[in-house]
Amino acid sequence: MINTRLSVAIHILSLVATEPHLSSDRIASSVTTNPVVIRRISGELRRAGLLASRAGVPGFTLTKSPEEITLLDIYKAVNLEKDLFAIHDKPNPNCQIGREIQHTLDLTFDSVRQAMENELNSKTLRDVLQQLQQNIRNR
Amino acid sequence: MINTRLSVAIHILSLVATEPHLSSDRIASSVTTNPVVIRRISGELRRAGLLASRAGVPGFTLTKSPEEITLLDIYKAVNLEKDLFAIHDKPNPNCQIGREIQHTLDLTFDSVRQAMENELNSKTLRDVLQQLQQNIRNR
Repeated sequence: MINTRLSVAIHILSLVATEPHLSSDRIASSVTTNPVVIRRISGELRRAGLLASRAGVPGFTLTKSPEEITLLDIYKAVNLEKDLFAIHDKPNPNCQIGREIQHTLDLTFDSVRQAMENELNSKTLRDVLQQLQQNIRNR
Repeated sequence: MINTRLSVAIHILSLVATEPHLSSDRIASSVTTNPVVIRRISGELRRAGLLASRAGVPGFTLTKSPEEITLLDIYKAVNLEKDLFAIHDKPNPNCQIGREIQHTLDLTFDSVRQAMENELNSKTLRDVLQQLQQNIRNR
């Protein structure tokens, strides 16, 4: 399921924030998925500059503190912005509506994307960790 | 591509609004996809009460005027709400973070979903049709 990428990425970062240098296998066992999936998403988080690894040391560390990592940073890191509200890519140019639908929907979806991104930008990994701790305490 | 469902659904409704009783084949030729995809998405729009069909008459008509159909209605009709921001479904209950991550992310994603749905609710099929007409005129 492609769209669990954001939730898996946040899960990975929450684990690494709590216990640096966890191996992909240990992370995979908490997420309950294949280590390959964890390595792929960790790779995206690393390329986005949110995770760092060091030669000879297993696993990852965060590159900044949790309050400096917004959910928008994570969302962009896993390339979800390219998937959500995707527009079908080759409508018929010989049909008036087919020819203009992509540009029209691009304009229409812009404000929807913007509203969503503003909200993602207002939350940080620290907020998630605090909510996690609260839920763990209330168990 | 699962996430083009919303854009294909809006394309279908725009065509039907402009020319009622278009066949699935004609719609598929404007969208440039398989008629099976058009029939599946049209079926979802019909079940959501946005499209109507009559025995013996090909194609569909809108059940209400375009200004009464919000993009949120269309988004819900194609079940996108179940896909966007999906949460991975079986994190490890033996890990503290694994056990609480779903509930935590559900709370976290709620306001993001809400912001997006408010924006989708503020736009109607009429807005899309007007933008389409404007783009066609400006060609």
